Amino acid sequence: MFRAVIQITLRPSILDPQGKAVAHAVGTLGVNGVRSVRMGKHVEVTFDGVSEDEARRATDEMCKKLLANPVMEDYRFTLEKVQ
Amino acid sequence: MFRAVIQITLRPSILDPQGKAVAHAVGTLGVNGVRSVRMGKHVEVTFDGVSEDEARRATDEMCKKLLANPVMEDYRFTLEKVQ
Repeated sequence: MFRAVIQITLRPSILDPQGKAVAHAVGTLGVNGVRSVRMGKHVEVTFDGVSEDEARRATDEMCKKLLANPVMEDYRFTLEKVQ
Repeated sequence: MFRAVIQITLRPSILDPQGKAVAHAVGTLGVNGVRSVRMGKHVEVTFDGVSEDEARRATDEMCKKLLANPVMEDYRFTLEKVQ
């Protein structure tokens, strides 16, 4: 089995109102030094019965067609073998 | 400056309807071998003018009090130096 761990982030040029809201809320916690907050998605996909190469291709296709919006978002992922 | 990269995931015992929906949708792409999908949050926090230790403490506090729901979610983060 393989597990793909995917990080989907907004492109740097895209405004992130959710992140701005978190950065603002941080002030009420008394946490100092926060310059910016960017929110994204974290996805873990477990594959069974496929090779590492197939899992990598499948993850890439899922990201491109389903999980990420290629106009606004970037994605990167790592693939690890699991028991 | 330091950047904290935070991964917030649902605890394994918590049902993930969004992940189930993605796993179902994957079938329409013709992608095979997907056994499960779990959705989580990815957060990047940039700190300025604080030490590595302060940034680490602040990130932990933000996760505990603001970003993650400790009943349903786990979090982990890495801290890296950025220019």
